Amino acid sequence: MDYKGRLVRLRQAMDRHKLDAVLITHPPNIQYLCGFAGSTGALVMAERVCFFTDGRYTEQALAEVQGSRIKIARKSALAAAAQWLGSSKLRRIGIEAQHLRVAERAVVASAVGKGSKLVDAPPIVEELREVKDQDEIASIRRSCALAARLFDRLREVIRRGITESEVAGEVEFAARKLGAEQMAFPTIVAGGERSALPHGRASTAAIPSSGFVVCDFGVILAGYCSDMTRTVHVGNPRSKAQLVYNAVREAQQAALEAVRSGAITGEVDRAARNVLKKSNLAKFFTHSTGHGVGLEIHESPRIAAGPRKVLRPGMVITIEPGVYLQGEFGVRIEDTVVVTNSGAETLTAGSKELLTF
Amino acid sequence: MDYKGRLVRLRQAMDRHKLDAVLITHPPNIQYLCGFAGSTGALVMAERVCFFTDGRYTEQALAEVQGSRIKIARKSALAAAAQWLGSSKLRRIGIEAQHLRVAERAVVASAVGKGSKLVDAPPIVEELREVKDQDEIASIRRSCALAARLFDRLREVIRRGITESEVAGEVEFAARKLGAEQMAFPTIVAGGERSALPHGRASTAAIPSSGFVVCDFGVILAGYCSDMTRTVHVGNPRSKAQLVYNAVREAQQAALEAVRSGAITGEVDRAARNVLKKSNLAKFFTHSTGHGVGLEIHESPRIAAGPRKVLRPGMVITIEPGVYLQGEFGVRIEDTVVVTNSGAETLTAGSKELLTF
Repeated sequence: MDYKGRLVRLRQAMDRHKLDAVLITHPPNIQYLCGFAGSTGALVMAERVCFFTDGRYTEQALAEVQGSRIKIARKSALAAAAQWLGSSKLRRIGIEAQHLRVAERAVVASAVGKGSKLVDAPPIVEELREVKDQDEIASIRRSCALAARLFDRLREVIRRGITESEVAGEVEFAARKLGAEQMAFPTIVAGGERSALPHGRASTAAIPSSGFVVCDFGVILAGYCSDMTRTVHVGNPRSKAQLVYNAVREAQQAALEAVRSGAITGEVDRAARNVLKKSNLAKFFTHSTGHGVGLEIHESPRIAAGPRKVLRPGMVITIEPGVYLQGEFGVRIEDTVVVTNSGAETLTAGSKELLTF
Repeated sequence: MDYKGRLVRLRQAMDRHKLDAVLITHPPNIQYLCGFAGSTGALVMAERVCFFTDGRYTEQALAEVQGSRIKIARKSALAAAAQWLGSSKLRRIGIEAQHLRVAERAVVASAVGKGSKLVDAPPIVEELREVKDQDEIASIRRSCALAARLFDRLREVIRRGITESEVAGEVEFAARKLGAEQMAFPTIVAGGERSALPHGRASTAAIPSSGFVVCDFGVILAGYCSDMTRTVHVGNPRSKAQLVYNAVREAQQAALEAVRSGAITGEVDRAARNVLKKSNLAKFFTHSTGHGVGLEIHESPRIAAGPRKVLRPGMVITIEPGVYLQGEFGVRIEDTVVVTNSGAETLTAGSKELLTF
């Protein structure tokens, strides 16, 4: 990974925001900038770059960190980083206001003293992370290919009577055997009425003899996430179910076709909603159309009605419209795609026909 | 679960800290106080108790929330909660300073206006959560019993050549089949030299033909976590390996014997370290002796050298000394136990003999 280039771009962003230093505490941002994949650390970018962690992570830091000096704190990595900043007599120190806790800010403020001003920095590193480089896209591509193979496994095991949790277990076991480090989020397998829960984690409920099953899953492979949803049907779908499925599928296709370099995120979102409006289903689409995917399962940019962000080549996003009819059923279809000059390349291959079991 | 009693105790704590209201944003604290197990919400305790979430969680809130009114925010649950607080003209509003982000605090501050003072509240709810009630202990007991069965599965599958990730996959699959909602943390299976990494997640490395394998795992069952570590050996252990294993086992036993109602956390920690000192291994025990377990895998109290907290009956903690010899091997043995009047009841049953494979 191009840590050197990332640090150069971070420095440029700091200059734009007139920051003499930044204190990076959000683990995925730390990983992006220096490679450290552990959960506890702090990266300081001032004149020099220095990564702080504690004794539990000495080995891991030595193995993973690139382009930064490493300091092992005796107690808290954050306090050590703040003390180091305090000794540097810097004027404007940026903190990650969207991540740093109020109590952590107090620790930092007391260590840097009154000569320095703590500035709530905008999400600088998150913005750098929006556009993936070739190494990252290759990693996400592999992560998505693995997710697609999980859908194959899912099709083998799904049947009436098996519990949602068992289906999830089969999928997760397959993921491990295929080399995934872990799931990217709690696997969703939600059958029957539970398919109407947009975030219905796999429960101990049995797959019913008839109805939709929403399956939403993804893995972390070499640090990078994938995200994919397919909705299948057990038994023969009634006409309403078929109608809703087709509408969601058409909405997803319309949003996919709206993705390209230069497109506005809000327009991609609208493309999906406009299709659902035709069948009076738009009001049951209660979440945004998608989100960025990378080191985190949810990252910038959001694909939603509000934000007017321009898509750029190398962004990796999900397109995942859904319709949720409470007490009846729900349908969601999701792919992870990479934005290209001419459109969107889907990374999570897998049939979107309505499969019945 | 006794939500009513918990809210009464929260009110008493608020009175002690002279708070007219508290804004609870940490999801496990929200779950503790009203039952909501989703990831996005805010609970306000003022004259009345009100839980805020957004449209994605309407169904779940209706199904889970007890003892609180429910308000569905059109946009951000946090902003809606802050507006509601703002309209109430309260003087002192406590925020969870250890959890609330700097940027979130700014949202709250602007909504409540200048008539109210935001107070960095101490971890009130975390303190309430330290001592588990009978329902909670029953849940943790079941979660730990499930973890213990995973160790049985682990013993069936561990052998030279199988990858760490496959072992973890087998364990996690068994967990699903036994009804676990999810793993409580990324499963650690770390063989050979990797056993010296205190937080060595299962990797694609193969279990070597000779050496230790540290296995650290736990599940979430009915919302409650379990945490258990066993270290096994592949091939015949050399005398140094046997010596270190015995020292860690003796240290764990000494710490377990130091646990009882009225004991000080720091003394429990010291009991483990004192044993390791005899073999000059104390300096390789680079983390604390344990932590509370409940709705979160790591919660209060910490069992470490510094804190002088008094153990009380109903606290659930881990006892997990370890020795890590970089470049050679590591050993950790961990149980989850409940503090009783006379000692510690171990919830994660399972042999601590050095098992070889």
